[in-house]
Amino acid sequence: MRSDMLTSILTELNGSSADIEASGIISTDGLMIAAVLPAGMDEDRVGAMSAAMLSLGDRTAQELARGELEQVLIKGDRGYVLMTHAGKEAVLTVLAKPNAKLGLIFLDVKRAASSVSEMI
Amino acid sequence: MRSDMLTSILTELNGSSADIEASGIISTDGLMIAAVLPAGMDEDRVGAMSAAMLSLGDRTAQELARGELEQVLIKGDRGYVLMTHAGKEAVLTVLAKPNAKLGLIFLDVKRAASSVSEMI
Repeated sequence: MRSDMLTSILTELNGSSADIEASGIISTDGLMIAAVLPAGMDEDRVGAMSAAMLSLGDRTAQELARGELEQVLIKGDRGYVLMTHAGKEAVLTVLAKPNAKLGLIFLDVKRAASSVSEMI
Repeated sequence: MRSDMLTSILTELNGSSADIEASGIISTDGLMIAAVLPAGMDEDRVGAMSAAMLSLGDRTAQELARGELEQVLIKGDRGYVLMTHAGKEAVLTVLAKPNAKLGLIFLDVKRAASSVSEMI
């Protein structure tokens, strides 16, 4: 099943680094397609915030002449949220720890987003 | 004058790397405090989009348990927008080219944001 394959991409991504806490694939209208989240984290909340950030990120990239949106990164003092387009229809959202090695995570997420976009 | 000193921080920041195209200091309610922008780039637009992204970034960081918001980074195929809190009242927004060395820019922007926050 396709949803099992998407979940296994996320499981592999979460396992690629101890700094990745959670990941999800969300349709561009904010509905969760697949997710591997820790207990207590709400799917709908991750979906809704990802879709809202992507939509405003798209608009910002356009208004400030940055071209087509590829990624949005949010850094808080308790960790990161990284959102990456996975094809036209979906977004890959990853939550990472505060001291995460961003370079490695960017690489792993880019690879996973490309696998997801081939499958959706 | 304080506004001259803020402008000189921005001029120095833009000069620190050829990859930085523009920078501005914006109050958290979206009004421009100081800016060094290329001809043809609209101050009000930069202010409005920065304030909107920061506000949604704050909310996202809270909802997804990432703590207090420090930075928002937007990557488009034609460049980056990097927004960093400069104290409680202001935001430092930087526009950078697509192939910018992000690590260096993060360092320079962090230093500039800290100078700005001492001055506001």
